[in-house]
Amino acid sequence: MSFEYAEGLGFLINPKNVAHYEDGKVIILDRRIYPMKVEFVTCHHYTEVIQAIRDMVTQSMGPWLASACGMVLAAHEAKNKPIGQIESFLVKAADEIGHARPTTAAFQVRHMQRILDVILHALRAGEDIEQTALYFVNKILEERYEEDRTIGAYTAAMLPDRVRLLTQCFAETYIGYTLLEARKAGKEISLICPETRPFLQGARLTASMAREMDIPVTVVTDNMPGFMMSQGLVDVFACAADVVTLDGYAVNKVGTFQLAMAAHYHKIPCYILRNPSVSEPHIKDVKIEMRNPEESLKFFDTRTVKEGVQGFYPAFDITPPTLISGVVTSKGVFSPFDLRNHFVPVAEVVNECS
Amino acid sequence: MSFEYAEGLGFLINPKNVAHYEDGKVIILDRRIYPMKVEFVTCHHYTEVIQAIRDMVTQSMGPWLASACGMVLAAHEAKNKPIGQIESFLVKAADEIGHARPTTAAFQVRHMQRILDVILHALRAGEDIEQTALYFVNKILEERYEEDRTIGAYTAAMLPDRVRLLTQCFAETYIGYTLLEARKAGKEISLICPETRPFLQGARLTASMAREMDIPVTVVTDNMPGFMMSQGLVDVFACAADVVTLDGYAVNKVGTFQLAMAAHYHKIPCYILRNPSVSEPHIKDVKIEMRNPEESLKFFDTRTVKEGVQGFYPAFDITPPTLISGVVTSKGVFSPFDLRNHFVPVAEVVNECS
Repeated sequence: MSFEYAEGLGFLINPKNVAHYEDGKVIILDRRIYPMKVEFVTCHHYTEVIQAIRDMVTQSMGPWLASACGMVLAAHEAKNKPIGQIESFLVKAADEIGHARPTTAAFQVRHMQRILDVILHALRAGEDIEQTALYFVNKILEERYEEDRTIGAYTAAMLPDRVRLLTQCFAETYIGYTLLEARKAGKEISLICPETRPFLQGARLTASMAREMDIPVTVVTDNMPGFMMSQGLVDVFACAADVVTLDGYAVNKVGTFQLAMAAHYHKIPCYILRNPSVSEPHIKDVKIEMRNPEESLKFFDTRTVKEGVQGFYPAFDITPPTLISGVVTSKGVFSPFDLRNHFVPVAEVVNECS
Repeated sequence: MSFEYAEGLGFLINPKNVAHYEDGKVIILDRRIYPMKVEFVTCHHYTEVIQAIRDMVTQSMGPWLASACGMVLAAHEAKNKPIGQIESFLVKAADEIGHARPTTAAFQVRHMQRILDVILHALRAGEDIEQTALYFVNKILEERYEEDRTIGAYTAAMLPDRVRLLTQCFAETYIGYTLLEARKAGKEISLICPETRPFLQGARLTASMAREMDIPVTVVTDNMPGFMMSQGLVDVFACAADVVTLDGYAVNKVGTFQLAMAAHYHKIPCYILRNPSVSEPHIKDVKIEMRNPEESLKFFDTRTVKEGVQGFYPAFDITPPTLISGVVTSKGVFSPFDLRNHFVPVAEVVNECS
């Protein structure tokens, strides 16, 4: 895989580090321990990629890329199967990888289907399915980074010239490109990251990315942003989402909803950075993943409670459209109540208006 | 000191463990490490009590009691001073102990003044100032527990018969008595504790107290209560406050404000349990303590961020009266806009109405 287009991105956003395919292996940065330790998880079978995604070795955009690489690995594995079993093996792999985590399953199944279609086409044409898959994954990855850069540019354009930007969890390329584009436009930008318990993606990942980019960054615990808003220390709240439904709901790392309520209370704009998902027209179609409750009762390996205390761990929460000032997509900024227009060619919109 | 009236309270709420005076020593439970370790900090000079309060060895109601014991210790120390210096030594001690932490200073200075007055009176009467101080502290402690039990009873009376109660930080006697009184009234009560970063009082203290009382308890990270509310898993939000100003603002452990905003959004009642403070008529009189920002970047002794990342640590936040459904005081439940009536004898209120 080549990553020339990703040059200039920091260590964490460079897809080479996020996850990449190489000679029958998918290599994924272990984001659970970064930056304390810089270690990679190596998967030799596509099923290990699924497990890595489930175990949150990678998250945010990571599963999108790791799962795509997982399909390349499945194509590699398929080459050793009897000819009559190759297709069913690949179909099974696509289905299983797509369902690694429930909340993003609809979107991910579609993502896998797209890669599967290309592989099966190559198979029927007698081409090298592994090389075809790798080429295709690299192409859609490049497209995705281009899209995310566009989303970052649209977001940056809305920011005031001096801006203290609150984010949530690790919005990866979306927030990385927003910072880059804002700086390119001469804006004075600093970042506030809630630490994002229980896995601390805000403290460990987002803040590390900002440091690498030399953007001033402040980390607070998840209960502090409301106070910062009340003191006039936050200008804009912007984060990504794991899913944006067509009816305008943002499903993102748990805590986003609380920040959106607080932003709304303080009349601070709340932007969601992500293309809406055609696979999820309605919020009722999205299943919120409930993770092992014990994970809420630990900090790394230290248990924080007495025996007999129960935990509860929703991985995501739901921010309703009434709290969202704008959804920034690769086609521009949309009202959360108007997301279908993201899919309408510009010419049609113009025609409709004339 | 005798604690007969406190029988039946759990380990953590029993004043003997919170802080007590004994033969020239103030002995304070180290709440920073409970329940992982059960250790006490022993202070031989009143200045060590101040340091312990500053270092958050104890919090919630702890400083109120530890500081009172600190005055007994000061009286003990004063007995060895030349006669002409005793009074100035005690005045200085009261002033310094009262100012241990800025946010509660006005209230604490008044608390110290009350004890100082009794000690100085004994000094002039030629009585044993240490014994007098000890007797008086024990008396006001007993009164306080009685008051807190009343507040708990008023709160419990407002709860539905089946109630999932969300709290914040460690509301100690207030929430302990609420649980006791609710159970006594046959209500089915369970508790939800946000862990309360950075020091985890919710996970370590409140949840431990509930376990000891055999109340079902769930701990979540601080970014999850909003989602729980949206799923109908929270019936009532109730917590204490370090200060309730006469104009209806609650100053409490940072995070309370976010929970109050979320409760308001979901039309869940928000009760603040505490007598209003005559020392702080207006919220503008209260100074929010800004603690060492590094404490927000650590979890126990593990640093969570890369070098160069900044921290920020407001110990408290401010919940405005518009988000508070009722302030529960030892005189009953008041609108946050009507707190002056807490200080009006009942007869006067009746007269005003007739």
